[in-house]
Amino acid sequence: MEWFVYLSGEIHSDWRKEIMDGIEKEDLPVECFAPVTDHPASDNCGVDILGKEENDFWKDHKGAQINAIRTRTLIEQSDIVVVKFGDKYKQWNAAFDAGYASALGKKLIILHQPEHTHALKEVDAAALAVTETPDQVVEILKYVTTEE
Amino acid sequence: MEWFVYLSGEIHSDWRKEIMDGIEKEDLPVECFAPVTDHPASDNCGVDILGKEENDFWKDHKGAQINAIRTRTLIEQSDIVVVKFGDKYKQWNAAFDAGYASALGKKLIILHQPEHTHALKEVDAAALAVTETPDQVVEILKYVTTEE
Amino acid sequence: MEWFVYLSGEIHSDWRKEIMDGIEKEDLPVECFAPVTDHPASDNCGVDILGKEENDFWKDHKGAQINAIRTRTLIEQSDIVVVKFGDKYKQWNAAFDAGYASALGKKLIILHQPEHTHALKEVDAAALAVTETPDQVVEILKYVTTEE
Amino acid sequence: MEWFVYLSGEIHSDWRKEIMDGIEKEDLPVECFAPVTDHPASDNCGVDILGKEENDFWKDHKGAQINAIRTRTLIEQSDIVVVKFGDKYKQWNAAFDAGYASALGKKLIILHQPEHTHALKEVDAAALAVTETPDQVVEILKYVTTEE
Amino acid sequence: MEWFVYLSGEIHSDWRKEIMDGIEKEDLPVECFAPVTDHPASDNCGVDILGKEENDFWKDHKGAQINAIRTRTLIEQSDIVVVKFGDKYKQWNAAFDAGYASALGKKLIILHQPEHTHALKEVDAAALAVTETPDQVVEILKYVTTEE
Amino acid sequence: MEWFVYLSGEIHSDWRKEIMDGIEKEDLPVECFAPVTDHPASDNCGVDILGKEENDFWKDHKGAQINAIRTRTLIEQSDIVVVKFGDKYKQWNAAFDAGYASALGKKLIILHQPEHTHALKEVDAAALAVTETPDQVVEILKYVTTEE
Amino acid sequence: MEWFVYLSGEIHSDWRKEIMDGIEKEDLPVECFAPVTDHPASDNCGVDILGKEENDFWKDHKGAQINAIRTRTLIEQSDIVVVKFGDKYKQWNAAFDAGYASALGKKLIILHQPEHTHALKEVDAAALAVTETPDQVVEILKYVTTEE
Amino acid sequence: MEWFVYLSGEIHSDWRKEIMDGIEKEDLPVECFAPVTDHPASDNCGVDILGKEENDFWKDHKGAQINAIRTRTLIEQSDIVVVKFGDKYKQWNAAFDAGYASALGKKLIILHQPEHTHALKEVDAAALAVTETPDQVVEILKYVTTEE
Repeated sequence: MEWFVYLSGEIHSDWRKEIMDGIEKEDLPVECFAPVTDHPASDNCGVDILGKEENDFWKDHKGAQINAIRTRTLIEQSDIVVVKFGDKYKQWNAAFDAGYASALGKKLIILHQPEHTHALKEVDAAALAVTETPDQVVEILKYVTTEE
Repeated sequence: MEWFVYLSGEIHSDWRKEIMDGIEKEDLPVECFAPVTDHPASDNCGVDILGKEENDFWKDHKGAQINAIRTRTLIEQSDIVVVKFGDKYKQWNAAFDAGYASALGKKLIILHQPEHTHALKEVDAAALAVTETPDQVVEILKYVTTEE
Repeated sequence: MEWFVYLSGEIHSDWRKEIMDGIEKEDLPVECFAPVTDHPASDNCGVDILGKEENDFWKDHKGAQINAIRTRTLIEQSDIVVVKFGDKYKQWNAAFDAGYASALGKKLIILHQPEHTHALKEVDAAALAVTETPDQVVEILKYVTTEE
Repeated sequence: MEWFVYLSGEIHSDWRKEIMDGIEKEDLPVECFAPVTDHPASDNCGVDILGKEENDFWKDHKGAQINAIRTRTLIEQSDIVVVKFGDKYKQWNAAFDAGYASALGKKLIILHQPEHTHALKEVDAAALAVTETPDQVVEILKYVTTEE
Repeated sequence: MEWFVYLSGEIHSDWRKEIMDGIEKEDLPVECFAPVTDHPASDNCGVDILGKEENDFWKDHKGAQINAIRTRTLIEQSDIVVVKFGDKYKQWNAAFDAGYASALGKKLIILHQPEHTHALKEVDAAALAVTETPDQVVEILKYVTTEE
Repeated sequence: MEWFVYLSGEIHSDWRKEIMDGIEKEDLPVECFAPVTDHPASDNCGVDILGKEENDFWKDHKGAQINAIRTRTLIEQSDIVVVKFGDKYKQWNAAFDAGYASALGKKLIILHQPEHTHALKEVDAAALAVTETPDQVVEILKYVTTEE
Repeated sequence: MEWFVYLSGEIHSDWRKEIMDGIEKEDLPVECFAPVTDHPASDNCGVDILGKEENDFWKDHKGAQINAIRTRTLIEQSDIVVVKFGDKYKQWNAAFDAGYASALGKKLIILHQPEHTHALKEVDAAALAVTETPDQVVEILKYVTTEE
Repeated sequence: MEWFVYLSGEIHSDWRKEIMDGIEKEDLPVECFAPVTDHPASDNCGVDILGKEENDFWKDHKGAQINAIRTRTLIEQSDIVVVKFGDKYKQWNAAFDAGYASALGKKLIILHQPEHTHALKEVDAAALAVTETPDQVVEILKYVTTEE
């Protein structure tokens, strides 16, 4: 069986690459999905494709809805959803994805530094694993998909 | 018909009271639900009821899970979920609730100041209304429940 | 048992009143729901409550989403959804409601004149009754709720 | 991952071909589904296969139900449903499909000219993108399936 | 808690009355639902309300669909579905109701004479109780609703 | 896309073979499923595998439950469920399958002779096509899967 | 809002009474449900109502299925499911109820002595609270239903 | 069609190997899934991957939640769930899996010695087959997947 894993959250570090490299190195039966991680493309896709907006609210709205076509579809296809929280930005979309995935019965793995433990307690409480490094995520994926 | 509305998010301002006062004043057929908004009680319920923990992670975990008994049940009972974002704290639990409610098909109303528009674009994109004041929430509730 | 019936579609004739009068006259155990049928209020609710828009698309968008808070909630609460089609306007929202209700497993009753039979064949094909007058709808509601 | 896209609505222009050509040209991982677009075959399939009817209502009914075997199955299989509205005919079936798809949680992309904005406001309000040309649909499909 | 019980099947004997009398005598917290059991009304409701049909197939079709508005709604509202099979007629509708209720997760109680055991083995296999008399049904309802 | 079709009902005529031959001849993208159609094997599987029973009720029960492992799984996998009714036996299991499939949202095609129209009116009312011959079923499958 | 709580598991101690006394004393908005806790009645209901069986397996089977009419209905009605494990007997039915409730999304509270921690780790891992005394259950119910 | 079968329960005998050998020998279209059956790995995965815990409760909790990522995903993927009960240990996790699978509509096959009939009556009552040997499970899988 092939496992589908969605990697949600932080797009300003290379944590997804570390996990995907680990999966490749260990040759795990796992396919990874992700949102569009090109920040300007993600911010501008709405106006680039559908036309300019005077008002920034509607610019963001059109872009976020197009991105939702991708993210909701891929989360629904996944068995496991990994959500990474970091220091930069508000990352409310990461927490939104975690809630969305949780209500759909997806298995949540959360990835964050210990200093965010209190702020993330409700999110962590919905997870089946709380990790601190991409390596730990790879180890969990290895264990659950190969029994090793 | 009575409408059930869950008020999620910020617990450090009196926005819930403003909405509930408005509902009472307008005599709307709306019952409001909320999480436990006594901050220390909410933080400590796990260790207060189930016993102390050495490790803060598990203290938070036990508390957050007990709070989830309340919040998930009430969100599932609701027709409409209002989520308020503010400046203080990370409020990842508010965004988590928004995602959770969205995946369950609840009707989302988001409440935040314009300066958070970009950070909340994915959350707003899942909502049926984005408001800036508790009064606007009351007006929407009045309009959708009484046609006035 | 009380039955919940949503009356969707045409807002420019008094068909809803005829059905509700019939229900009252027959004293049926039926509660009727409807969208906001005050046309200007329905068109303007978005900008009236949430603020003006330069662009008519967004004016309509905000209004339609607020109306959706009401209509989706009430359709989900209903056992039976009656949808009336007439000559005026495109009435795509009526057909949208019919499809939405159908996918949720609601029991559909369609109400239209014979001249629209061909244009409505896909909608009628999803219905459990196709009627031509409000009286027939009342008779069906009487029969299914009271066995008479 | 292969994406499944259902193309609903207008059958009197070549918009489906434009989208499918665009998908082929861009070599997107997308499989397109559609209703039977041979108009006479679609209208007559009921009586052609199951026998004549005196009454046009039942002729239409039998045909529309056979077509529903195809359309409902393919909509349920799809990740994304594109619905095109045009000037000709009532197109209530297109709006019905949009409502049906929306209640199933499919991601809606609507395609129509600006002059229908007001008439389609409820349908557009349920969509994640509102487009004016088949090219824009292709661009969205390219962006959401390939990140480019 | 009030329990909802749907009584499906045979309409030519007074088994429903026996069960409802037993429920009343024992003062059980049970509300019973049933299809329309006036045989001519049930057969003719379609043409009586919606107009004559030349073809008996369509006469039956219109009537059966109106009856389905009642039966599907009440089965969906019920906790327990009792289905009675007898010697007369084919009673395919009773078996259809049993299958419909089973797929919805309703608790099935089947009522039939031992001579039909082999013919009903698939239906019985989906049930939580197979009874031979209305008294046994009442005893089960008493036991499960009052612990006595 | 490959379509999955479950062929339920009558096991004493060769109607399944006719349909499967037609599918093969037309080279349709359809895979057919069926219950175990070896009558003695189907009747005896319970006691053959799990041991003898004194009581015929339990013999039938064990066999019917093992058969249900197959039939429920395959019905759930199917897009379309064809149910054939004939003159022999009670065929309550066929009507049960029709109800079960209907509640799961499967597209029903019913196959029976005109003399059973009245007895099958509730079952037919839940179907998207009512046919009289296996050829008509093949024609429908051809039309809905290939547009021809 | 009234909360529904199902009390599953051990029937040989008075833990249910302790919880219900606590709820009454605190005047909580909670209604409790339970299986039939009269052990001989629970064991014998099948043969008492439906007739004797030679084989103990079928005696148990008939009784367990009648009890399932009650237990599954009440678990499905509940918001919270409390499951108590003790030393006596295998209590596989308690663990079965926990798994059943968990898959339905019910909020689980587990009640057991520390010596069973390792044996119950999978059950505890699905719970939102793991308690050691009925008092702790009452305290949790008080906190989540009254915010105190 | 390939069938997916999850083998839950006892990990201290070679019953899974017997079933998988039988499937291979008979060349059945069946893929088997299982939990991690390396007992120490299963017990320690939480602390091995995520770090030590002072408290055994949390050690078990972290391990059981990681194991749940695997077991819940595979149970959800399966058509049939086989659960084996033996003499050793409490095996509450086996009964939990049976309840979890049952609520998801999976087809349950239970495997246990006759001496546990009374203790397992509620679990058996939810099953479609109760077996005593791995051979019987293989025979059932052969019968339901190949009609032989």
